[in-house]
Amino acid sequence: MKIMRFITEDETIAWGTGWDGKTASRLEGDVFVNLTDTGERLKVRQVLPVVWASAIICIGLNYRRHAKETGLEMPEYPAVFMKNPGAITGHGAPIVIPGCCTEPPEVDFEAELGVVIKSPVKNVSEEKALDYVMGYTCANDVSARRWQKHAGAGQWVKGKSFDTFCPCGPVMVTPDEITDPQDLDIQCRINGTVMQKSNTSDMVFSVARIISYLSQSCTLMPGTLILTGTPEGVGYTRNPPVYLTPGDRVETEIQGIGTLENTVVLEK
Amino acid sequence: MKIMRFITEDETIAWGTGWDGKTASRLEGDVFVNLTDTGERLKVRQVLPVVWASAIICIGLNYRRHAKETGLEMPEYPAVFMKNPGAITGHGAPIVIPGCCTEPPEVDFEAELGVVIKSPVKNVSEEKALDYVMGYTCANDVSARRWQKHAGAGQWVKGKSFDTFCPCGPVMVTPDEITDPQDLDIQCRINGTVMQKSNTSDMVFSVARIISYLSQSCTLMPGTLILTGTPEGVGYTRNPPVYLTPGDRVETEIQGIGTLENTVVLEK
Repeated sequence: MKIMRFITEDETIAWGTGWDGKTASRLEGDVFVNLTDTGERLKVRQVLPVVWASAIICIGLNYRRHAKETGLEMPEYPAVFMKNPGAITGHGAPIVIPGCCTEPPEVDFEAELGVVIKSPVKNVSEEKALDYVMGYTCANDVSARRWQKHAGAGQWVKGKSFDTFCPCGPVMVTPDEITDPQDLDIQCRINGTVMQKSNTSDMVFSVARIISYLSQSCTLMPGTLILTGTPEGVGYTRNPPVYLTPGDRVETEIQGIGTLENTVVLEK
Repeated sequence: MKIMRFITEDETIAWGTGWDGKTASRLEGDVFVNLTDTGERLKVRQVLPVVWASAIICIGLNYRRHAKETGLEMPEYPAVFMKNPGAITGHGAPIVIPGCCTEPPEVDFEAELGVVIKSPVKNVSEEKALDYVMGYTCANDVSARRWQKHAGAGQWVKGKSFDTFCPCGPVMVTPDEITDPQDLDIQCRINGTVMQKSNTSDMVFSVARIISYLSQSCTLMPGTLILTGTPEGVGYTRNPPVYLTPGDRVETEIQGIGTLENTVVLEK
């Protein structure tokens, strides 16, 4: 099922499916337990992030050709960092360039497969890891490159955590519709131009391996959103570099999920 | 007021104050809005973490003498990293050494002043930052040093996020009782031996400065727990190094708050 979260015409928050761009069919129940399609069509006033993440855990350098373009050493283990959960935003919402990231520009895009955890998971084997997936979504690990590199002690969190730096959606797709998470085409387009074009088969660490690794003596709570790394083609590795500027239309497309669209604006 | 969260005799979760080690006075209301002391004494079966953090944001290298002992460069900005929110645990609960952190030992202690955010805050000035503090608590930024350093791309999150790696408590003290958060004695004792002994006046970046900095274009949500860095004396900088071993009693004491006690055990 393709699940979405949205604001209805009477200003309530609802879960839906069968979104046609204007309306969706209302889902009944709890996303962590079971959702049933009521068939009742509701007008979608605003698409919300597909999940209100309890934590956003990210994997760096997880596509072979991206690891190569950064010039960084391929990690022996998945490189793990986090984003402030307040960074989440939804389909159709703006990506806001913070005032402290404009001179010179530094805000970059990273199309990523997002994985949402369904129930508490700890010390799970790679073989059983995918049993804990609630769904897959398109995500973008928006990154302020100077803050990422120079904010202090080489830690990436600050440059990754500004508000709206984690768009996700438009829908979350349940695992029964994703036969193989390691064979999905993934793209990022800026104003229609393809900037990243790859397939999740280029991942160094598979989704199952990542969940197993992260859960090692560490409980992943329901609603945890895992960003699984970005393929090659990000802006700062280009010659000349490409950074997001106000008015840019960012599309993050993943096969079998859909296209997440966000327009770039400047912080007021 | 000194606020605690605990499990009562009839297995419900309550907020309390006036804890005498066995009972506490039940608080009524919402911790984010207003709590009133009912005067009703309840038996404390188990102390819980003072807050269920929506996010744990940590500052590294924030005491002058600790920055010196690590040999790392003093950062121009606060070094920011995060811990998985599942790492939280309470007073009297064990610190569990993960199976992957025993050969050789590597789990270290870091006594820290914890600050809990009360209401959403973004782009706040240093002058107004403390208005958003719900309270102060003792915390320990337990750290697996090898995982911290070598897990991938120099990111600290993995080595900081194992379950129980964020004890906090025993109480949270409201700001009216903390005249100056930059003048609090702080200690860490292992089996009664003082390992860290300092004062929050040695911080490079004050609590107000940290909140203002973190809130820059980034919303801190209610319940966010900020760990404000640790003073000198941590285990790995000692000669010979001192790491936590099963049976160790870890005490984190902060003036005006109290003493957080945790005993170290090995993961089963």
